[in-house]
Amino acid sequence: MSGWLCIAGLGPGDPHLVTPEVTAAIDAATDVVGYIPYVARIAPRAGLTLHPSDNRVELDRAAAALAMAAAGRQVVVVSSGDPGVFAMASAVFEALENQPDWQQLDIRVLPGITAMLAAAARAGAPLGHDFCAINLSDNLKPASLIEARVRAAAEADFAMAFYNPRSASRPHTFGRILALLRSICGPDRLITFARAVSTPDEQIRTVSLAEATPEMADMRTVVLVGNAATRRVGRFVYTPRSAV
Amino acid sequence: MSGWLCIAGLGPGDPHLVTPEVTAAIDAATDVVGYIPYVARIAPRAGLTLHPSDNRVELDRAAAALAMAAAGRQVVVVSSGDPGVFAMASAVFEALENQPDWQQLDIRVLPGITAMLAAAARAGAPLGHDFCAINLSDNLKPASLIEARVRAAAEADFAMAFYNPRSASRPHTFGRILALLRSICGPDRLITFARAVSTPDEQIRTVSLAEATPEMADMRTVVLVGNAATRRVGRFVYTPRSAV
Repeated sequence: MSGWLCIAGLGPGDPHLVTPEVTAAIDAATDVVGYIPYVARIAPRAGLTLHPSDNRVELDRAAAALAMAAAGRQVVVVSSGDPGVFAMASAVFEALENQPDWQQLDIRVLPGITAMLAAAARAGAPLGHDFCAINLSDNLKPASLIEARVRAAAEADFAMAFYNPRSASRPHTFGRILALLRSICGPDRLITFARAVSTPDEQIRTVSLAEATPEMADMRTVVLVGNAATRRVGRFVYTPRSAV
Repeated sequence: MSGWLCIAGLGPGDPHLVTPEVTAAIDAATDVVGYIPYVARIAPRAGLTLHPSDNRVELDRAAAALAMAAAGRQVVVVSSGDPGVFAMASAVFEALENQPDWQQLDIRVLPGITAMLAAAARAGAPLGHDFCAINLSDNLKPASLIEARVRAAAEADFAMAFYNPRSASRPHTFGRILALLRSICGPDRLITFARAVSTPDEQIRTVSLAEATPEMADMRTVVLVGNAATRRVGRFVYTPRSAV
């Protein structure tokens, strides 16, 4: 049997949010490759080799997975959420650029439930109108570009989802983002902190920008910011379909 | 048994992209409510009543679903894709605003694979960096706001996904959006037209903005626009994780 590579999204954590397409790919695989906590979600079985690797080695991991597929293995690269949203799909294509011989391989991306949409569902419908997804990590882009995009999105009244809002290595940048948002959107704009969505550690909390503090976010949190019309109804928060 | 309401995302069309959570909700339901072509995707069975309704009656449909749940029925409102992305979740919360008596009902939103992420997966990873989702329908917002948001997103170098790019009632507005994009992003920017993703009618086509014409989109198409770094690798199109 010839090799193939799937880049698959495991969703935010709950096994009931994994698509049957992804489950079938994992069932058919000889090798599963990914970041340690994501590979830990795959049940071991005979005939399946698990290849967990550390964070920030995405390109090496992608190249190793492609090499295995080129050697005839059936390989699934697992990502949390959706593989095309701040995850492994782009890393695999980047590795593929460096290895034209592998571009004819059987490669497929299998979508998953991305964190912002799982978080929005738990909160209500805060992304129910035009919205932006922004990665706040400055690992692969300058902080000035992040701030410029947040400013543009806020000024155009998009709802927003922030991935990787805060980490130990940059504890202060998220505070600057909150200050920027307050200056453009005012103190009453609603912001939702969704931590570890769909896992036993899940915490969902909606506050106003005036009440929001950087400590409400960590690396397991996705942050959702409403647009000017976003409001509460009962225990939910939602953004109307209409702009006015 | 007391009533409940789930607002569930069926994904873009392929049954293998429906989450087990959504399948379980439909299996437990007494009533399924939704737009005619989405309800048509639900297998009839004894004990399940299907309530298909026409387009553009979202608020009436939402109120009817809430009334059934309040009367003790187990109700699933189905959307294509994800219910929180230009779909039924916001309509249900809008209806709930008008009926405070119903705000204590057991209501849950069940996420699904939204069209832009299914389309991105098929194309490669064109949304692999910061991106915006914009509904181009002027049914619920002015055309001037749509153009202002597209301009802001393009100037801040977001990748973009457009829902409802074109319809029979507004055949010319998408041409204006393409012209606006060409003026900001230049002729070489990559744009992907993804029609009927994951169905037997699927068509995926990536061209440059210079080659793009309005006729490449219809109401079954989601359109993905890359950022300045988006490029082809083999038969795929992807946006690098790095901003530069």
